[in-house]
Amino acid sequence: MRIDIITCLPEMFKGTVDQSILKRAEDKGLAQIHIHNLRDYAVNKHNQIDDYAFGGGAGMVLMIEPIDKCISKLKAERSYDDIIYMSPDGELLSQGISNELSLHQNMILLCGHYKGVDERVREHLVTREISIGNYVLTGGELAAAVVADSIIRLLPGVMNDETSALTDSFQDNLVAPPVYTRPADYKGWAVPEVLTSGHEAKINDWRFDQAVKRTRQKRPDLLGDESNN
Amino acid sequence: MRIDIITCLPEMFKGTVDQSILKRAEDKGLAQIHIHNLRDYAVNKHNQIDDYAFGGGAGMVLMIEPIDKCISKLKAERSYDDIIYMSPDGELLSQGISNELSLHQNMILLCGHYKGVDERVREHLVTREISIGNYVLTGGELAAAVVADSIIRLLPGVMNDETSALTDSFQDNLVAPPVYTRPADYKGWAVPEVLTSGHEAKINDWRFDQAVKRTRQKRPDLLGDESNN
Repeated sequence: MRIDIITCLPEMFKGTVDQSILKRAEDKGLAQIHIHNLRDYAVNKHNQIDDYAFGGGAGMVLMIEPIDKCISKLKAERSYDDIIYMSPDGELLSQGISNELSLHQNMILLCGHYKGVDERVREHLVTREISIGNYVLTGGELAAAVVADSIIRLLPGVMNDETSALTDSFQDNLVAPPVYTRPADYKGWAVPEVLTSGHEAKINDWRFDQAVKRTRQKRPDLLGDESNN
Repeated sequence: MRIDIITCLPEMFKGTVDQSILKRAEDKGLAQIHIHNLRDYAVNKHNQIDDYAFGGGAGMVLMIEPIDKCISKLKAERSYDDIIYMSPDGELLSQGISNELSLHQNMILLCGHYKGVDERVREHLVTREISIGNYVLTGGELAAAVVADSIIRLLPGVMNDETSALTDSFQDNLVAPPVYTRPADYKGWAVPEVLTSGHEAKINDWRFDQAVKRTRQKRPDLLGDESNN
């Protein structure tokens, strides 16, 4: 899998791409992440990539031309399954969408900043718009990092133990059951006895019951609503 | 505002805390972000902070003791409005919650990793659990960065132009209207005429109509549903 990220703040990806699971996936040859600085595609000698909005109002808008130049260059090099604009009003990211995107070969993640990108980018240059939630961020950079992390961890071989991702929250429309580790007693707070019983069937039953109970309590929306998966 | 982030991967915050709006807020004296390495609170000479789950199964669990030691130290130094565990099954972050959290003086964001934290941390040590969306990430680090970004940009004086945050998506239960910038014509794709008319009232009407239309089309859930705001 190859992910190309287009951004006007490439340095924001230092901690995520150079570290963490993304780095591990790159080292294993399972994923490549390329960060493209929009300023390298600036339209004039002032390195301009944004301008005031037509019609007035606060905030700067990223211009279409540098974005078009960058996307066109990438598309000339290979074909892309999706060119995704990270936008607060995009399709809401869910585990189901992450699963789907994890099957892509190549994709572009375009990060907006300030008031966003010129609308014509959305009309003509992108194939999909994704939001990571109903809140506004300073730019699309963190959202792109979230999408990359949620996808790349699903690639076979990236996680140390492949079964780990399969027992995550959401994969079966249930949130994960509680987990405990040593010590068995901490300040009088004890681990549920069943977990130290060594009785595997009972432990599995307990975990399933807890997952259902917890989903009902914390995320009733996940039960019986396929759209969330 | 002071945000203390507890993590076992402090280097993941390099690009976000050292750059971007968080850095700007720190430089202006409007916010302080402190990253605490959980490993500094390890329980033994092996620097251990995680262990296998009781009852078996894939994935490591962060131990309660290092987390308790770190939180206790911080709480001895000042009082906290909230101690928040970043969890995929927590309360779903929304613009309304970000607005609310932006009024806090001090808060702790605890990042899980691998299979999460020992359940007793959630039962006894945290005051709130927040999820940034219905998908699983490798750890809570990106989620904490998202929460910090969404809150800190709301602090008066952080954004260059204060009106900028007020016209964002979600603040009025509508997503933002389309924006355009120069050139007025790009490859035959023209900016809507009203925006270059100079007629302020007509521009405002057009923007409001577009915001309503776009919300209806892209996010009908936001209309008439206060829980999303």
